[in-house]
Amino acid sequence: MVKLNSHFFKLRGGYFFAEIERRIALFQGQSSSRGSLFNLGIGDLVEPLPPSLLTALVGACEEMGRRESFRGYGPAEGYLFLREKIAAHEYANCSVSPDEIFISDGAQSDMAHFQELFDGTNRIAVLDPTYPAYVDANVMAGRTGNWGKEGKYEGITYLACTEENQFQPTPPSCPLDLIYLCCPNNPTGVSFERAKLEAWVEYAKRHGALLLIDGAYSSFVTGDGMPRTIYEIPGAKEVAVEFRTFSKSAGFTGLRCSYTVVPKEIFLEGRSLRELWKRRQETKFNGVAYPIQRAAEALFSPAGKQETGARIASYLQGTRCIRERLLSSGLSAFGGFDAPYVWCKAPEGMGSWDFFDFLLQKHQIISVPGSGFGKGGEGFIRFSGFVGPATIEGAMSKINATACYR
Amino acid sequence: MVKLNSHFFKLRGGYFFAEIERRIALFQGQSSSRGSLFNLGIGDLVEPLPPSLLTALVGACEEMGRRESFRGYGPAEGYLFLREKIAAHEYANCSVSPDEIFISDGAQSDMAHFQELFDGTNRIAVLDPTYPAYVDANVMAGRTGNWGKEGKYEGITYLACTEENQFQPTPPSCPLDLIYLCCPNNPTGVSFERAKLEAWVEYAKRHGALLLIDGAYSSFVTGDGMPRTIYEIPGAKEVAVEFRTFSKSAGFTGLRCSYTVVPKEIFLEGRSLRELWKRRQETKFNGVAYPIQRAAEALFSPAGKQETGARIASYLQGTRCIRERLLSSGLSAFGGFDAPYVWCKAPEGMGSWDFFDFLLQKHQIISVPGSGFGKGGEGFIRFSGFVGPATIEGAMSKINATACYR
Repeated sequence: MVKLNSHFFKLRGGYFFAEIERRIALFQGQSSSRGSLFNLGIGDLVEPLPPSLLTALVGACEEMGRRESFRGYGPAEGYLFLREKIAAHEYANCSVSPDEIFISDGAQSDMAHFQELFDGTNRIAVLDPTYPAYVDANVMAGRTGNWGKEGKYEGITYLACTEENQFQPTPPSCPLDLIYLCCPNNPTGVSFERAKLEAWVEYAKRHGALLLIDGAYSSFVTGDGMPRTIYEIPGAKEVAVEFRTFSKSAGFTGLRCSYTVVPKEIFLEGRSLRELWKRRQETKFNGVAYPIQRAAEALFSPAGKQETGARIASYLQGTRCIRERLLSSGLSAFGGFDAPYVWCKAPEGMGSWDFFDFLLQKHQIISVPGSGFGKGGEGFIRFSGFVGPATIEGAMSKINATACYR
Repeated sequence: MVKLNSHFFKLRGGYFFAEIERRIALFQGQSSSRGSLFNLGIGDLVEPLPPSLLTALVGACEEMGRRESFRGYGPAEGYLFLREKIAAHEYANCSVSPDEIFISDGAQSDMAHFQELFDGTNRIAVLDPTYPAYVDANVMAGRTGNWGKEGKYEGITYLACTEENQFQPTPPSCPLDLIYLCCPNNPTGVSFERAKLEAWVEYAKRHGALLLIDGAYSSFVTGDGMPRTIYEIPGAKEVAVEFRTFSKSAGFTGLRCSYTVVPKEIFLEGRSLRELWKRRQETKFNGVAYPIQRAAEALFSPAGKQETGARIASYLQGTRCIRERLLSSGLSAFGGFDAPYVWCKAPEGMGSWDFFDFLLQKHQIISVPGSGFGKGGEGFIRFSGFVGPATIEGAMSKINATACYR
């Protein structure tokens, strides 16, 4: 008789985004005006693929149609041409070599899969709030207890991101093993400053812990002196794995390409972590489509860099606009400098869903309730800058023109 | 202190294909003639993408370059347009519905991941010999004991594929839980006849077991009355999950697209297996690139069917040619009718590697030693039909012209 993995039953229902959709549909059904909505909830992209990336993509597809240039199975770790470009352009000053880079189909997949390399008894820590996929993968693997009444899984250490710590928690005194740091953090839109990351690297060395850095938004880090990769911190190559994606920097959410850096310096129990991950990938993964790796490579051409850089700058400009308009209307807003998200505090006495409903019904603005990213997100909402200027201007003029939220 | 998943240390070294490469390089270095080799070892494709699939692929890429047709995140389970086509064309007579189909990036990935849904205590069975990825995934998950001296993992039931049972083992008397059946089987090139599959479905119902059918080569099944899918067997929708890929039928080894059928009828411990897999995929997977799903869809157009059908017929014609020439030279050869592989028995007293070396050194033919697919493959080699007529003719004329192996 087949027995199921009972840890799956601990998972909370995946109803969060469905509930957002339900409330929007309900509002649109009731609303007499039925005016268009301002969607600042979106975490996806709307701008098309940059021209030079598209050219590379189409060219590589056409190679697949000719016998002399057709390519079958590629290397599970990705083509060297792409790994070399990433090493040279993204890690120029951090001595990351191409054979420490593994190409994959998504940072989410890799972060969800990476825990397979570790024993079930490791102590897990995550930011609170943060992107939920790491927690769910560890729940499925049996590394947590049940979902408790307090809105947290038993057996996970939640690192509170609060106004008091500028949404950058410092290491605790207790020992931890696997520490997931989303940096810049989704949803708070705040990245870790150098000193904070140094403290985490120091902690990991002292406790024999491993830092698992979700750098999905690393290309948005532009602040002076802000680290763009964990490997800018001395010693990080011995204790940190970094996950990154082309989704947000190059408009690849619909094409799927990402990479994970597993430094050769990391040895656990005398074994190379890089070798373990390589074996895992060779067994369970067959690489990313060749044309998509060519499109990703084009991001590092002069034209590709210019096009994607302009795109990122434009998203960040919109994000800062959201932040400033919220602040000038009397709301408390955070993040938005090194990430395309603004973290907005609900007015006194309002919860995340209350504020979501208020913004939807009063201003036709769609946001994302912060409570969907963990208990620590309660009382906040997330605004996204992945939208055009007209949407931002329309939404923000509503907030600014009609109400002071103090 | 981080603790590793110690089950990884049970894995045998992944040296099999590396050893083949080493021996070929050694031979080429020593050989005075340095003539070209006949590569019948290949499991990859060499023919380019069929024209109508290429047109669909390029067209969808170009959609990604225009704002009005750009697509970001797609559904984790794949686009409905592709799932509808698969249901209509591949499962026309089996009432598989689109929402029982999950698009993925590889049958290997899905088969390696599917075991996550089950408890660690389930009893695993695999064909012997067979494709090794399922075993390795279960080893990593701790569902087996150590690698034993007899060339098998402790705790796995190996279902011997032998001449006596026509390489189609029947269910044992002992209870099993998760049964991996590669059908048609790689490397033997033999598919299961209807009565044999009926016996497995009946067994699964009786024991509460689940059949995990690797149908990677299902499009090569062309024999009269041979089932092309497990769902041709009455009752199979209650006990069988089927994994399939576009890799071999459409030349997608370098593009990556596959699908898994998880019927709604399967309930275990009162829970829908389809719902569990859906949750798994939503958490750990973000879907397949949109253009690649469009290319896969084009396989079901009249032109796509014609082009891929001709390709498959050509591969099978080559495979049958290999088989006939081997037989007429006095060797024992099996398979090759419903799969692009011929399973050739080594002459009396020779092991797999002996025969591999003999073919390489005497005839400049590359094959794959059967022992790489499990203990039950010892004494055999695998020839692949994924090659052009000139290679097959060149290789087989060597064998036929020079020796009788009886």
